[in-house]
Amino acid sequence: MEDRYYMEHALRLASAGAGHVTPNPLVGAVLVRNGQVIGEGWHARYGGPHAEQAAIDHALQQGNDPRGATLYCTLEPCSFTAPDKHNPPCTTAIRTHGIRTVVLAIVDPNPRVRGSGIAQLKQAGIEVRTGVCARKAVRQNEAYILSREQRRPYIVLKWAQSLDGCMATGSHDSKWISSPSAREEAHHLRGRLDAVMVGSGTAAHDDPQLTVRTANNRYPQPLRVVVSRHGNLRKDSHLVTQADTIPTRLYCTGISPDQQSRLTAAGIQVIPVEPDSESLPSLHQVMQHLYDDGIQSILVEGGARLHASLLRQGLYDRITAFTEPVFLGDGLRPTDNLHPATVAAAPRLLDSEFHRFGSTISISGLHPDAARLLHDLIPDKEASCSPV
Amino acid sequence: MEDRYYMEHALRLASAGAGHVTPNPLVGAVLVRNGQVIGEGWHARYGGPHAEQAAIDHALQQGNDPRGATLYCTLEPCSFTAPDKHNPPCTTAIRTHGIRTVVLAIVDPNPRVRGSGIAQLKQAGIEVRTGVCARKAVRQNEAYILSREQRRPYIVLKWAQSLDGCMATGSHDSKWISSPSAREEAHHLRGRLDAVMVGSGTAAHDDPQLTVRTANNRYPQPLRVVVSRHGNLRKDSHLVTQADTIPTRLYCTGISPDQQSRLTAAGIQVIPVEPDSESLPSLHQVMQHLYDDGIQSILVEGGARLHASLLRQGLYDRITAFTEPVFLGDGLRPTDNLHPATVAAAPRLLDSEFHRFGSTISISGLHPDAARLLHDLIPDKEASCSPV
Repeated sequence: MEDRYYMEHALRLASAGAGHVTPNPLVGAVLVRNGQVIGEGWHARYGGPHAEQAAIDHALQQGNDPRGATLYCTLEPCSFTAPDKHNPPCTTAIRTHGIRTVVLAIVDPNPRVRGSGIAQLKQAGIEVRTGVCARKAVRQNEAYILSREQRRPYIVLKWAQSLDGCMATGSHDSKWISSPSAREEAHHLRGRLDAVMVGSGTAAHDDPQLTVRTANNRYPQPLRVVVSRHGNLRKDSHLVTQADTIPTRLYCTGISPDQQSRLTAAGIQVIPVEPDSESLPSLHQVMQHLYDDGIQSILVEGGARLHASLLRQGLYDRITAFTEPVFLGDGLRPTDNLHPATVAAAPRLLDSEFHRFGSTISISGLHPDAARLLHDLIPDKEASCSPV
Repeated sequence: MEDRYYMEHALRLASAGAGHVTPNPLVGAVLVRNGQVIGEGWHARYGGPHAEQAAIDHALQQGNDPRGATLYCTLEPCSFTAPDKHNPPCTTAIRTHGIRTVVLAIVDPNPRVRGSGIAQLKQAGIEVRTGVCARKAVRQNEAYILSREQRRPYIVLKWAQSLDGCMATGSHDSKWISSPSAREEAHHLRGRLDAVMVGSGTAAHDDPQLTVRTANNRYPQPLRVVVSRHGNLRKDSHLVTQADTIPTRLYCTGISPDQQSRLTAAGIQVIPVEPDSESLPSLHQVMQHLYDDGIQSILVEGGARLHASLLRQGLYDRITAFTEPVFLGDGLRPTDNLHPATVAAAPRLLDSEFHRFGSTISISGLHPDAARLLHDLIPDKEASCSPV
């Protein structure tokens, strides 16, 4: 009970790093002694101090000695040094400052940690309890966990749809299917991930900006990614005219040298990729290139054709459908090319969750493979947390 | 605050009458004196005592004098006598027993009451407050309110669908799209309404029983209604073989004399109706016949074609879609024949609500005309109730 209370606080602290720590995990930490919080911290930006160190520093600044205290931490403390790592091992800091007990949500799936942090703490005589609020901690670090486990970006397909599964009417009208607060939430989603992707049809038809535009925006702008066979971006489009200030990338299979130099001059990175069996840019190759370039998470915003390709290829971890109680009938649907013979054989989302945004309901769930990987980090009898 | 507390209790009491009081409204009543509940009651069955009388009787049985008490009542007390009415006016009982204050959720839209109950109470020097938990009270009596206002049954379209709006795969597999607890809830829905309707395709393909089969069922069996052009019901189907014990009715445009006498002999009521412009049984005429026969509310369970006809004709008050996070692609959809040009012109549900049943999310909302009629009974600044 008490463990859950402090761990939920640590999880809330961790969320403040969203959008700023990639490719590191979100981590929050709380130091407690005699039922009092004596220090708290979180990993606030990539390269900055880890949450554990931040909580210890915070305690010391306030004149509180961490000796004998309990540290609540949303992820297993790191246990190694490496040339590409900015911080010393947190296990050392915990030991040095005489912390007596460490309570963890989940093990760090990073192969360089994965239990060795816990082992080091135990060796030093520190009591370790794990699995507190594990489900929530896993949910918070889905991008970190799934990108590492699968060696590709964590992929979220997001669309706004009618209750009958259409993203637009037959005549391509889609403004606006979802409520203003759902559209605001979609901007927060963008801000929390590293990149935003659209297909060429959406780029041409909607002229999207793909930027984060929330009130008091505290997120960095994600990388804007367009997948387009021939790279036909209009030169007066937002994607082209803003490319000098907002990182923008185009993946294409065939582009004229003229068009390529024009786009490159505008500031767009043009990356050629192999065509797939349907002569479209290979999405597997696109995702691999993004991952190798340090992109840990990507939000795919459409259109229906790009979603359909990713759905058919199973290239997604989470689907979030902002669903409005309206009926668009024979409109544009991302799933028109799916033909499951039975309900049992149809693509299914697991661990579904739903939230209301005005008149819109967001329904979100995991690809079964992603769900399985995440469940592996949750003990059978987790000390459960109340829903956020 | 206190008003809402007691009114919510009265609303809970009222719900115990669900399925048993039609065509009367659900009503609950609570008598309170000095912060203590001294009596409570509800309208438990058609022809039985009204909630107000039941609460007074309950108080007296317990040796509590209602004199000076406050009566909380979910609907305006009745104020008239009539040959077709089983009970004396509740306004008289309230006055006779010296009740000092009456707190109401909503006015009774029945033209024979509609404010005259309140007027009578005020004339007798009784303080009356109205509009407490009005939204919830309206929700509870949708069938009563909307059937009276529109002079046809209250029509609920219910289906189980994939997240992309399909009721079955292209090869007609639909077992099971929704979770066991969603299917259990669907039985409760049946029990709370007067009739259940399916089209001929569903009757032939699914061989449904259309009965209420809940654990410890406390509902009466609703009238089973089939709409079928030629009345082709298989003689070994549940609808035919159970017709001797469960009221079953067939609406058709053309049926052979042989078939008709066979079905009639099995216990099915066969009612001929005019064909509509598509040579199908006129659904307007079907609904009118049901209403004239005392059916106040009907649950339409499909299939896709029947739902589509009712959707196109605007013949519905509420749609409830049990939505499972699965994708059925090019499967059977009730909305395939809708072609709205714009999102703004598409059929939209208002006052949407949603509930989780295992992995299934039920999304439910009102036809805009129904929402308007209901809103008329809710004061602008209602003393709001917490959600159920």
